[in-house]
Amino acid sequence: MKTISILGSTGSIGIQTLEIVRLHPDLFKVASLAAGDNIRLLEQQVREFKPSLVSCRTSGAAAELKRSLTDYLPSVRIEHSLEGLIDAATFHTADLVVAALPGSAGLMPTFAAVKMGKDVALATKEVLVMAGDLFIEMVNRKGVRLLPVDSEQSAIFQCLQGSNEAGIERIILTASGGPFRDLPQSDLGLVTKDQALKHPRWKMGPKVTIDSATLMNKGLEVIEARWLFNVPVERIEVVIHPQSIVHSMIEFADGSILAQLGTTDMKIPISYALAFPKRISSGTPRISFPELGSLTFMEPDLQKFPLLRAAFSVLEKGDTASAIILNAADEVAVQLFLDGKIGFSRIAEIVLDGLQSIPSDRTDTLEQIMSFHEQVVLQIRSKWTNH
Amino acid sequence: MKTISILGSTGSIGIQTLEIVRLHPDLFKVASLAAGDNIRLLEQQVREFKPSLVSCRTSGAAAELKRSLTDYLPSVRIEHSLEGLIDAATFHTADLVVAALPGSAGLMPTFAAVKMGKDVALATKEVLVMAGDLFIEMVNRKGVRLLPVDSEQSAIFQCLQGSNEAGIERIILTASGGPFRDLPQSDLGLVTKDQALKHPRWKMGPKVTIDSATLMNKGLEVIEARWLFNVPVERIEVVIHPQSIVHSMIEFADGSILAQLGTTDMKIPISYALAFPKRISSGTPRISFPELGSLTFMEPDLQKFPLLRAAFSVLEKGDTASAIILNAADEVAVQLFLDGKIGFSRIAEIVLDGLQSIPSDRTDTLEQIMSFHEQVVLQIRSKWTNH
Repeated sequence: MKTISILGSTGSIGIQTLEIVRLHPDLFKVASLAAGDNIRLLEQQVREFKPSLVSCRTSGAAAELKRSLTDYLPSVRIEHSLEGLIDAATFHTADLVVAALPGSAGLMPTFAAVKMGKDVALATKEVLVMAGDLFIEMVNRKGVRLLPVDSEQSAIFQCLQGSNEAGIERIILTASGGPFRDLPQSDLGLVTKDQALKHPRWKMGPKVTIDSATLMNKGLEVIEARWLFNVPVERIEVVIHPQSIVHSMIEFADGSILAQLGTTDMKIPISYALAFPKRISSGTPRISFPELGSLTFMEPDLQKFPLLRAAFSVLEKGDTASAIILNAADEVAVQLFLDGKIGFSRIAEIVLDGLQSIPSDRTDTLEQIMSFHEQVVLQIRSKWTNH
Repeated sequence: MKTISILGSTGSIGIQTLEIVRLHPDLFKVASLAAGDNIRLLEQQVREFKPSLVSCRTSGAAAELKRSLTDYLPSVRIEHSLEGLIDAATFHTADLVVAALPGSAGLMPTFAAVKMGKDVALATKEVLVMAGDLFIEMVNRKGVRLLPVDSEQSAIFQCLQGSNEAGIERIILTASGGPFRDLPQSDLGLVTKDQALKHPRWKMGPKVTIDSATLMNKGLEVIEARWLFNVPVERIEVVIHPQSIVHSMIEFADGSILAQLGTTDMKIPISYALAFPKRISSGTPRISFPELGSLTFMEPDLQKFPLLRAAFSVLEKGDTASAIILNAADEVAVQLFLDGKIGFSRIAEIVLDGLQSIPSDRTDTLEQIMSFHEQVVLQIRSKWTNH
């Protein structure tokens, strides 16, 4: 029996993690949950999965959850804010923490989980993008398992089992190309929020869906892969694969390539991360290759999607501060786009401008990283909000 | 330094094995070679790779080799016939025996190698098709490594590293479909030897090339896979994949699929078998996925290629004798076709007739297996030669 904590339990990954737990009551139980403001769903999750601790984003949300669980209390402790989140991430009975909070909010609790010796199933890209060096160093020092939940990173991780890393010649990250893969570059400026939110293959949260439309998401994954698998940037390649069946590949020294394939269902990487090194049923349908018919591949258009190129440049430069600027600027720009304040093409403009204009700062500690991130967010928000 | 013996050194697999040895003089040296009648090539191999023992098929060939190596003797012992072959397979300094003799001739020496505790890199399908049960039992008892050299079996073997076999849900063997994939069934009878010998993807010996045109080769691989990976026949599936880039796949309990991909170059599986569990350069070109463009998949046509279905039926029946009949009848039929004695469609007819008409016999020991095989070969040859 594995006891798990889920940070971000009402988000897409959190919900699917609980579906796997529901399929395997003999294998998993839930120690703690942390979520935002979706109190109705959180209440249901508490009643069904019976965690010992729940944390909400705000004190108001926590009070609301308490009210709706009056008949259920005191079977669950209800907390809130960063302190509650850290308590959920470090709850004493948990073996594995599923880190699936969106954005930079996931950083502090994920570090806290590792510091307490918990294995981590990582869905929050920002942990590696903003603090890859520090995080991997701590994972190694604490000797915990780091299990990627991203479908691409999970693919690479699965392909690497039973291989020694020394033999990695090339990581080939696949990308669906997003909803605007075939749109002429000149039309990108006219794209609406609804169009950008319609991902052709994956159902995900709004931030990552927009990032998939700009290919920033693939850029963040390039940075993630660099840290997760300790591979230099020149050995990482991105290939557009519209069907999203091949989730990523590894090439070895002998020219052999291993690929992981599956339906576009996050329950596969989630169930692998939960059950590792075992395989358990994930409740996903099987692939029929004759029905699929054909899998296609093409070069990404780096001119049309400059944020993917920007991610490579950031890794080539090799400084953490640039990665933080890239990530923070994108966080602000995507929010402005989702709020209807800017057009689609402006997202890339804002990020590239941020990388050019914002000077680096010290990023040696987690505190410096968080503070630099917040400083960049404020700076970019004030520059572009009244633009 | 690994010391290897090669049975079938002048055949396609043998030659490519020596190319890998040539690439890595620091990793491999050659203990012994066994070959047929290609004395010119064998002489070159002896001079370049300096084995301690060489065996030829016949005493005449051995005498010829001795003459051509007069200046080189006594640095190499030259033997012949089955006795010489067994000596080559069990040579005391060898760690690994590459078993790449064509057809049933590979059986006795491969068993002998395992009996002497040698690891085996297996290219000779017949060992598993004719005697899978006995062979795997002996491999397990002797605790030797069995490394598949067939590209499909190597693919599965690579995908399985780091997984526990219990999780295998499905083996998906890919098949190019051969040169007659798109030919109407009614035209198969008119096919010439030259057409059948032109495989669209792989350069191989004549027997396996014809077997690829009838899809018998894939049938034999289904039987091989059943023994190599201890997977019941109902979990083995064949998919036509004309590009031959995906060499085979495994599906796990969670729906995740691992695939091994590569160019159509046997040097990849050979170098993996030689260096296992390490990866070494194989001298093969890299794949560019954008250049490939597209990978396609379709159902095999079991009506047009009844020998593939026959292999499944043999496994479903579950008796070794049927597998021996299938294999022996095919060996005879392909030879008759190569000798210009029968048309292409007759190959399947002969094999299916053999399966129907020849009664089973005891196959509990290697001797019984070999004797039943020879009996079937004689019976089918006499029935069809003057037909």
